[in-house]
Amino acid sequence: MAAPEIDKLVTLLGKLPGLGPRSARRAALDLLKRRETLLLPLADAMARAAAEVRRCSICGNLDARDPCGVCTDERRDPSVLCVVEQVADLWAMERAGAFRGRYHVLGGTLSALDGVGPDELGIPRLAARIADGGITEVVMALPATVDGQTTAHYIADRLADAAPDTGITRLAHGMPVGGALDYMDDGTIQAALKARRPV
Amino acid sequence: MAAPEIDKLVTLLGKLPGLGPRSARRAALDLLKRRETLLLPLADAMARAAAEVRRCSICGNLDARDPCGVCTDERRDPSVLCVVEQVADLWAMERAGAFRGRYHVLGGTLSALDGVGPDELGIPRLAARIADGGITEVVMALPATVDGQTTAHYIADRLADAAPDTGITRLAHGMPVGGALDYMDDGTIQAALKARRPV
Repeated sequence: MAAPEIDKLVTLLGKLPGLGPRSARRAALDLLKRRETLLLPLADAMARAAAEVRRCSICGNLDARDPCGVCTDERRDPSVLCVVEQVADLWAMERAGAFRGRYHVLGGTLSALDGVGPDELGIPRLAARIADGGITEVVMALPATVDGQTTAHYIADRLADAAPDTGITRLAHGMPVGGALDYMDDGTIQAALKARRPV
Repeated sequence: MAAPEIDKLVTLLGKLPGLGPRSARRAALDLLKRRETLLLPLADAMARAAAEVRRCSICGNLDARDPCGVCTDERRDPSVLCVVEQVADLWAMERAGAFRGRYHVLGGTLSALDGVGPDELGIPRLAARIADGGITEVVMALPATVDGQTTAHYIADRLADAAPDTGITRLAHGMPVGGALDYMDDGTIQAALKARRPV
């Protein structure tokens, strides 16, 4: 119906997470309307990101250099390592601004259903990184899902052998700050009650 | 926090309609994960669309050629002209597949508040196009909003002088097909009742 150039743009935009066919059409028209201010800069930013951004060979973060900015930042504490599932989780930790150690991005969680085992996640590499020494604490910041917690326990077991002197912690479970009790699931309320602290 | 190449990508993606900051971050990571299958093809499709797609100088449609594919399609009836607000509306008409005439895309509706007058919408050009002859019916397919209907009436008044022999119609108001009465606004029910037809 429309020009093939437009059809192709709409089809590819529709593959982005969060954009269905209708919003992809809207986005394409909006881009064509803002050719100089949005379409050309975005095409350029994409080409540049595709050319420049790579995975850090130490931690799995995405950056324009390898090793990444976090791994090479001398002000960060190299003795504390935070294990996250995805780069998005690393970004979330950084936004929170409460962690000043370094990271390890797994890229997923163990999942028997999806055929994701320890080798696919590079857990041997993580174990070797920690066994190399210099890391006194590993903070498991994996999702509070069954797969996430299974993965955390698997890694903890493995590290108990590979690096017995390294402390292993995990993020606390409890009420989200600002959360209303009435909206919490039973598991969260149980975890929060179990981990209750003196006021 | 992240590499400037990634930050820029996230910022620009966040300017697309329908993507907030969080979904822009998700989209950027998804693009970087699907570099070969999505990121590079999309960057290329954008650059190509920016270079190739232009506005049709007859009807205002977007296409890789000028005049556009609709205006040059000999199988379409040149005596019926459909006036729409946006290219998205032209696409919607084409998807419905019920119209085989040609189009005129206004690019907006008259709006005193936003300072959009007849000249900004190219209404003199539209009137001239119709007064040139060969058009027997103009179908107003403008949005059923106050601004849309004001614009339709303004154009109809103007054409009554410029091309008194041209018939002017508008899309019917009524119940959307598949719509439930309980969900309709009062105005739609009133319009549907007023325009009721024998079964």
